Amino acid sequence: MLCVDMVEAANSGHPGAPMGMADIATVLWRDFLKHNPRNPLWSNRDRFVLSNGHASSMLYALLHLTGYDLPLDELRRFRQLGSKTPGHPEVGVTPGVETTTGPLGQGLTNAVGMALAEKTLAAQFNRPDFDIVNHYTYTFLGDGCLMEGISHEACSLAGTLKLSKLIAFYDDNGISIDGDVDGWFTDDTPQRFLSYGWHVIENVDGHDPLAIQEAILDAQSTTDKPTLICCKTVIGQGSPKKAGSHDVHGAPLGSEEVTRTRKALHWIYEPFEVPTKIGTYWNGSEQGEMRETLWNSQFFAYAKQYPELAAEYTRRVENQLPSNWSATAERHVRTAALQAQSIASRQASQAALNAFGPQLPELIGGSADLSPSNNTFWKGAADNTPNNPEGNYIRFGVREFGMSSIANGIALHGGFIPYCATFLVFSDYARNALRVAALSHVHAIFVYTHDSIGLGEDGPTHQPVEHLTSFRAMPNISVWRPCDSVETAVAWKKAIEDQSGPHILVFSRQTLAYQLRRADQLSLIERGGYVLREHDGHREDQPDLILIATGSEVELAIEAATKLNRKGIRARVVSMPSTTEFDKQSKQYRDSVLPPQVTHRVSVEAGSTLGWHKYVGSNGFAMGIDTFGESAPASELYAHFGLTVENIIEQAEQLTAI
Amino acid sequence: MLCVDMVEAANSGHPGAPMGMADIATVLWRDFLKHNPRNPLWSNRDRFVLSNGHASSMLYALLHLTGYDLPLDELRRFRQLGSKTPGHPEVGVTPGVETTTGPLGQGLTNAVGMALAEKTLAAQFNRPDFDIVNHYTYTFLGDGCLMEGISHEACSLAGTLKLSKLIAFYDDNGISIDGDVDGWFTDDTPQRFLSYGWHVIENVDGHDPLAIQEAILDAQSTTDKPTLICCKTVIGQGSPKKAGSHDVHGAPLGSEEVTRTRKALHWIYEPFEVPTKIGTYWNGSEQGEMRETLWNSQFFAYAKQYPELAAEYTRRVENQLPSNWSATAERHVRTAALQAQSIASRQASQAALNAFGPQLPELIGGSADLSPSNNTFWKGAADNTPNNPEGNYIRFGVREFGMSSIANGIALHGGFIPYCATFLVFSDYARNALRVAALSHVHAIFVYTHDSIGLGEDGPTHQPVEHLTSFRAMPNISVWRPCDSVETAVAWKKAIEDQSGPHILVFSRQTLAYQLRRADQLSLIERGGYVLREHDGHREDQPDLILIATGSEVELAIEAATKLNRKGIRARVVSMPSTTEFDKQSKQYRDSVLPPQVTHRVSVEAGSTLGWHKYVGSNGFAMGIDTFGESAPASELYAHFGLTVENIIEQAEQLTAI
Repeated sequence: MLCVDMVEAANSGHPGAPMGMADIATVLWRDFLKHNPRNPLWSNRDRFVLSNGHASSMLYALLHLTGYDLPLDELRRFRQLGSKTPGHPEVGVTPGVETTTGPLGQGLTNAVGMALAEKTLAAQFNRPDFDIVNHYTYTFLGDGCLMEGISHEACSLAGTLKLSKLIAFYDDNGISIDGDVDGWFTDDTPQRFLSYGWHVIENVDGHDPLAIQEAILDAQSTTDKPTLICCKTVIGQGSPKKAGSHDVHGAPLGSEEVTRTRKALHWIYEPFEVPTKIGTYWNGSEQGEMRETLWNSQFFAYAKQYPELAAEYTRRVENQLPSNWSATAERHVRTAALQAQSIASRQASQAALNAFGPQLPELIGGSADLSPSNNTFWKGAADNTPNNPEGNYIRFGVREFGMSSIANGIALHGGFIPYCATFLVFSDYARNALRVAALSHVHAIFVYTHDSIGLGEDGPTHQPVEHLTSFRAMPNISVWRPCDSVETAVAWKKAIEDQSGPHILVFSRQTLAYQLRRADQLSLIERGGYVLREHDGHREDQPDLILIATGSEVELAIEAATKLNRKGIRARVVSMPSTTEFDKQSKQYRDSVLPPQVTHRVSVEAGSTLGWHKYVGSNGFAMGIDTFGESAPASELYAHFGLTVENIIEQAEQLTAI
Repeated sequence: MLCVDMVEAANSGHPGAPMGMADIATVLWRDFLKHNPRNPLWSNRDRFVLSNGHASSMLYALLHLTGYDLPLDELRRFRQLGSKTPGHPEVGVTPGVETTTGPLGQGLTNAVGMALAEKTLAAQFNRPDFDIVNHYTYTFLGDGCLMEGISHEACSLAGTLKLSKLIAFYDDNGISIDGDVDGWFTDDTPQRFLSYGWHVIENVDGHDPLAIQEAILDAQSTTDKPTLICCKTVIGQGSPKKAGSHDVHGAPLGSEEVTRTRKALHWIYEPFEVPTKIGTYWNGSEQGEMRETLWNSQFFAYAKQYPELAAEYTRRVENQLPSNWSATAERHVRTAALQAQSIASRQASQAALNAFGPQLPELIGGSADLSPSNNTFWKGAADNTPNNPEGNYIRFGVREFGMSSIANGIALHGGFIPYCATFLVFSDYARNALRVAALSHVHAIFVYTHDSIGLGEDGPTHQPVEHLTSFRAMPNISVWRPCDSVETAVAWKKAIEDQSGPHILVFSRQTLAYQLRRADQLSLIERGGYVLREHDGHREDQPDLILIATGSEVELAIEAATKLNRKGIRARVVSMPSTTEFDKQSKQYRDSVLPPQVTHRVSVEAGSTLGWHKYVGSNGFAMGIDTFGESAPASELYAHFGLTVENIIEQAEQLTAI
């Protein structure tokens, strides 16, 4: 009834799923869920993920009832500006919400990531008699989640990895927005999950507490497979006129039907009234406190026996980098500068992993079946398998979306910094997972190689053109496209240090020329944009022209600038590995790199020019590729698309001649 | 050996899958495939889709051998600039290539769309004794396609719709790029497909022609289910040292191994040599010609008995709009202008469907389980089901990516103009299908409603911010965001008329104010940007300021302009429903709308500002939302994010004060 009241008060929302799943939620949250409402961040709590995020009112009601810091006033402000009860659950906004859900299928996939994180962390830290890490990951999901392709990717991999502490509840109510799912969803879901190697408990009456209890016990006793509990439920259960219909999915019941529902359920209380007896019965604070205390004393004993492990565990779940991190990072950047290697940035990325990895046991990653191409398998990588659950490398298979959303789940679980990789063009497959990561401030690293036409013969299906622009338009995600081994080192360093959100690291397939830098320039890389080559005129003179380039096009700009300076045109080159970082700098700094009075500017990037007008201005010129690519050797493509030193010079001369 | 030679000559490519699937391809293409190499566009041909598109050399070899206009010289130029043999198959580039593949899982999904198109077209046009439409859709796919989530969406729906003329060959070679798939792909694939309601033929030896033949016959005799033929194969079959290993997946064999392979296969011919006997044996031109002639005579008899149906069939498969189309379209635009309704553009979209639909039996569409929200179910819509296969409305279920790629397949099959719908934010799930549509010049229409924070309480997970920019950066896709019922009518009209590529139509959830227009303005809408409100000064005077807006923000700009003009600032309002169309106009036209000398410009769009600098220039200001949204009623959100008439006026005054 709390959920019903919330939706009525907001005059918007989804009462159907909360009413249909209330009985399941009651059993799970009252009898099984191991958590501490007074400390939502207790590292060994069970994780609960509401994959059908539109049922948010249920989650908020559960959090309120069990004693989280979510007062009734917040429930009354459901879906209002600035409340802790937004339309769909958002991690970081509401205490106890483990992940942001609503985009279907991703909650379930986050849960797979959390279960994988639990299993890996347990393998790394548990010792005989000390199950420091030992919790379940529960998730609720509906028909929508199961129709989404990502559910295939996630559940297939969960089966392969035998994530037995993942317990999923399928709200099998037979209804989706268009109506009765029989017309468009006829899978034999139990059979499907058996094909993934899951334990499946079929035909559980989702309104029978004993049946639900039994199913959970059965799931918990299964130690070699994840479990799907298929619960037959009635959407909008309790509503005399609307139960079982899609009308109850996404709209308030309406006051008449609310009255009828109250009557039918013999619920004599006012809206938002929680009778004391029920409030007391539900409150889990004491029990939660006791549970954590118990765990704390166990951890205390563990710390005595394994002081280093315990310190390391604490460091990791608190997301603190190792004390030697800064030194390690700086050393690698300097080493890259000294080595002066001209290599593909995907190789430089591997070098960064080799340098940073040994100091970062929290680093866990993998590729969507492109390890040899993405160069993500580093020297210290070891496959995470059922036989080697402590492994720090995940063979994700060809599952870009699943991989990315699993990475989000791993990051949200804590104890890890996840990275994952594919070709830049196939970031498309995973795009909404990156959006959810950005929205949720998830610290995950997305490695995208084969970043332009420079990949050559695989052709336009594999050549990203619009992707950099499309990610730069996304809020709260940092995008890096380094021009050489040194910028690559800095990009990785920033991606590891900056926990405020996800990072996209974009690397080349082909060799990139090493760029010489002074020490002060080296330190400027992390600002996202800096003067890599000053013009050859007097120190005090402003440049006649600025060339702005990223990644593989920086070396073209450098060569063009050298020739332009020889011709008497004072050309400066700005390397702009990250527009998103550059935009965060002070106006003073940005103006020092791109002085407003210097309006002759040419940007050079082997991709969409949209977005570059922001930097080149009305008098500038954006060079790039606004069509799809072609299948041919890379060097021919650069000539074909006019990304040549000669063309840069020509554009520069045209601009400065005006 | 032709494939091996092609990859060697290109020094790049994927020999493994072509060698592994050559035996299957031989049986299918020699003994079963009903096509006419002399007329790749014969409407009743069998469709063949290579979903594992990296095996492109095999497809090119097959097309060459069977007699398509693809000479050996093109095979020699595999993966070279301007050849008809790009790295991955591209429809429109190579005769006989039915769809663009390479991005895994999508070819299979296109095939589902083609099989659905065949079934629907057959139901609409076949008559007793006249199976005018009667062909199979065959597809080859590998482990990668099956790991991708989209394979779940597509195959689940194919099962529900009982697409029995879809026959898929699974190249079960146990190898993907990272190595032996056992580590990351342990699905029981036959069981999985049984759960979708498919007919599954297990354990077929993919190197035994008789077993393959038998399986195909079995599949063809199954008339109520799609069929998956699981073929055990050896990747790189024939290569003595590399067969069965992932080394042969994506790199040339190398000259030594090629020599060994030639020897092992007793292949005594030179590279690219096709012995006459084999060439003759393979050539399918005569047989194809005969087949089409036979069909033509059947169609001739059909045309005698059903002249109108025959004419209509011809019109549809030739992608010609009905003769009364222009009149219908113009009438609806005028009607919308006369009705002067202030309604949500999603409702205006439904009105367009209601107006155009009755004249366009080729229109087939649906929604990813959001029909009541997307307003895509129009008056003449009827569900396409196994019992009503002629239906023009597809209940796609919650399968955005599958839906979009199925739409591509329907369009490529011919006879239909597909449209499909979801919320704009969930276009993320489908993004690569839109990219492939754009690259392939597929005429499909993507309807995206709930286009901004204006959707309100569902919150940031559901509020698109970056999506318009991200699609505008994509080549060859037109993006429309109309401001009222009239622009909506024009957007739909353009989307139906312009067959050069896909169209994205972006609509509001909330009501949009009707805008009054003169007749000449009405005709300018289709240019993508036009002067909707001129300033109040003298006719000859240039405006002091231009406000550029799209969609729901146009009414704000109009109100702001009215107030600014009252204050003596000559403000013009440009409505820019489609920047992509506007960019295609002549410089003269664009300059007339946005005169270069008027540099005080403000753009207003409830989304990312990235990209708007192109239109507002260095002296302008881009108003928008560069963060994620919030969960609250829409009107509060507009105020919260500063998208108000007052703020537009303030920005305008600041600009013009300088």
